[in-house]
Amino acid sequence: MVIHPTALISPEASIAKNVEIGPFCIVHDNVKIAEGCKIGSHCELGVKTSLGDGSPLIIGENAQIRSHSVFYESSQFGTGLVTGHRATVRELTKAGKNLQIGTQTDIQGTVEIGDYTRFHSNVFVGQHMIFGDFVWVFPHVVFTNDPHPPSNHLVGSSIRDFAAIGAKSTILPGLEIGKGALVAAASVVTRDVGEDRIALGHPAKDSGPTSSVMRSDAPAEKAYPWRRHFRRGYPENVVKKWLSG
Amino acid sequence: MVIHPTALISPEASIAKNVEIGPFCIVHDNVKIAEGCKIGSHCELGVKTSLGDGSPLIIGENAQIRSHSVFYESSQFGTGLVTGHRATVRELTKAGKNLQIGTQTDIQGTVEIGDYTRFHSNVFVGQHMIFGDFVWVFPHVVFTNDPHPPSNHLVGSSIRDFAAIGAKSTILPGLEIGKGALVAAASVVTRDVGEDRIALGHPAKDSGPTSSVMRSDAPAEKAYPWRRHFRRGYPENVVKKWLSG
Amino acid sequence: MVIHPTALISPEASIAKNVEIGPFCIVHDNVKIAEGCKIGSHCELGVKTSLGDGSPLIIGENAQIRSHSVFYESSQFGTGLVTGHRATVRELTKAGKNLQIGTQTDIQGTVEIGDYTRFHSNVFVGQHMIFGDFVWVFPHVVFTNDPHPPSNHLVGSSIRDFAAIGAKSTILPGLEIGKGALVAAASVVTRDVGEDRIALGHPAKDSGPTSSVMRSDAPAEKAYPWRRHFRRGYPENVVKKWLSG
Repeated sequence: MVIHPTALISPEASIAKNVEIGPFCIVHDNVKIAEGCKIGSHCELGVKTSLGDGSPLIIGENAQIRSHSVFYESSQFGTGLVTGHRATVRELTKAGKNLQIGTQTDIQGTVEIGDYTRFHSNVFVGQHMIFGDFVWVFPHVVFTNDPHPPSNHLVGSSIRDFAAIGAKSTILPGLEIGKGALVAAASVVTRDVGEDRIALGHPAKDSGPTSSVMRSDAPAEKAYPWRRHFRRGYPENVVKKWLSG
Repeated sequence: MVIHPTALISPEASIAKNVEIGPFCIVHDNVKIAEGCKIGSHCELGVKTSLGDGSPLIIGENAQIRSHSVFYESSQFGTGLVTGHRATVRELTKAGKNLQIGTQTDIQGTVEIGDYTRFHSNVFVGQHMIFGDFVWVFPHVVFTNDPHPPSNHLVGSSIRDFAAIGAKSTILPGLEIGKGALVAAASVVTRDVGEDRIALGHPAKDSGPTSSVMRSDAPAEKAYPWRRHFRRGYPENVVKKWLSG
Repeated sequence: MVIHPTALISPEASIAKNVEIGPFCIVHDNVKIAEGCKIGSHCELGVKTSLGDGSPLIIGENAQIRSHSVFYESSQFGTGLVTGHRATVRELTKAGKNLQIGTQTDIQGTVEIGDYTRFHSNVFVGQHMIFGDFVWVFPHVVFTNDPHPPSNHLVGSSIRDFAAIGAKSTILPGLEIGKGALVAAASVVTRDVGEDRIALGHPAKDSGPTSSVMRSDAPAEKAYPWRRHFRRGYPENVVKKWLSG
């Protein structure tokens, strides 16, 4: 355990033996950090909230949380979490393994996230969203949840496995983005997007199957499903499963 | 007064008796913090600037400023200010009571804000904006102020009482958004929006009266004016006034 | 050298004599900071990365880096760098003199930037971008680099001298924004923009020459080229060169 002497660690927090915690960090009472995690400087973990369920913040093994990030209590993450700088995650966020959360991404809590899903920089995730496995969310995407704001009737959207949500898109409340779907950059999605379909524009319209997009670096090959040619950061057993599936 | 021993507090700052200030905070000279305020960790309050008027940063009673926020001198806030994490507020911001400023929202200063106005996450407020009372601004909205950038002739917009500006909208310079108006999510507003009218699209067009929107959770009832059914966080005397108004 | 006693400075970092470093900062090993620089509180400079080239983070003379900013090793900046709060700059960013980086702007690295270029708040700069001199980028602009995300074939865009990219615009991958061009606010640029042309809309269309825009504060005068009337913050010798050019 390599905890910087300036870090303020609650004696009630449960921290595994070989965890690293950087300077000027705060770890509150209701926190469990598993083996191999590295916490950057200036973070605050386990912020108390009356909106949680009393459960701790649970960070799975081998996480890397970069500097200035803030996590509330009552959220849990599988192994291999990676964040950029200044990530914010509120209570009742339940995520699988190998989640990536980009710099300044803001997860408002009451959210479910599968395995190997990746949020790039400065994504806004409203409450009640559900993300599958291997979802990609690119910079500055906003997931809204209020059909007529402000109201008390918040409605999340479901983003299915392998979907890719292009940079600066806006997803209106209560939608389903199908498996393998592509939302083009800066689109405003107001209707469901079917499996392996492209949504493009403001408002987004169906723009054909994702299989119609050819690779810019190999023009005779299809760009989607992306898992046929893009594997950076996925372990071998995952890629094998894709190839056999 | 519960000031964490790691916080750096200027002896010239004026801090009421029962204020809480978190670890690794900095409070500069020209700051007045009233009773009952709670300042989260890693904040910097009262940043000096030659662009101010020499007046202090004044934080009214019972504020809650969350971690990693930055406030400049020469701004003032009524009672009950609440911020998310990493709020930034520059000089010459003058706000009424019960202002909410979301995580990563960036108020550039030289701004007037009424009572009970709420900015959600990551809003950008250019200089010279005027906000009324009970205004709602949802995530990632940008208020611009330069008709032909870059120039020296910055022009703010006026957002009237009870207006709701949907997520990811852009407001062009020099506009008036009328009382109770609704800007739909991701709209780009290039013209004035009338009282209780809806603006929608890119560029935003008049899309009828707000009274045409029905509640998703009570389809026989109108969604606007929102104050008829949405009262979360407003005190009883405010709601009574709305009902009698 | 005025280094706050709470700052953590590597003895291997090279820091000039009259540098100021604020409280709760971290300066890692592989950093060179030139004379006259002022580093605000809660910054982290010289973050180690396996994606760099081993070279240090080099901050030129008289920089002002505001609080909570994060810079990686293997990037370099000419004299007069100014940042807002919470700037993030990753490795292999090479910038000229008098760069401005606004609050929460996120430069992903592997980027070239000329002299006197200015990024306003919360800009996202993907890898492989090239910016000329005197470029203006306004708040919440996103520069993308992946033609069919996710992929391994990232393609930057080139933004030429004096171009102005309006707030909340999105620039698709692999484009050229010509010298003196204007991208109107909230535009989605999918094609090259010619020299001194206006791009406007979603998708952005050519909207005539920039010389067609008249000044709002002097209606008989053209608003572009902006350097004819806007000189705030540029030194006299630069302005003289513009006038003679």
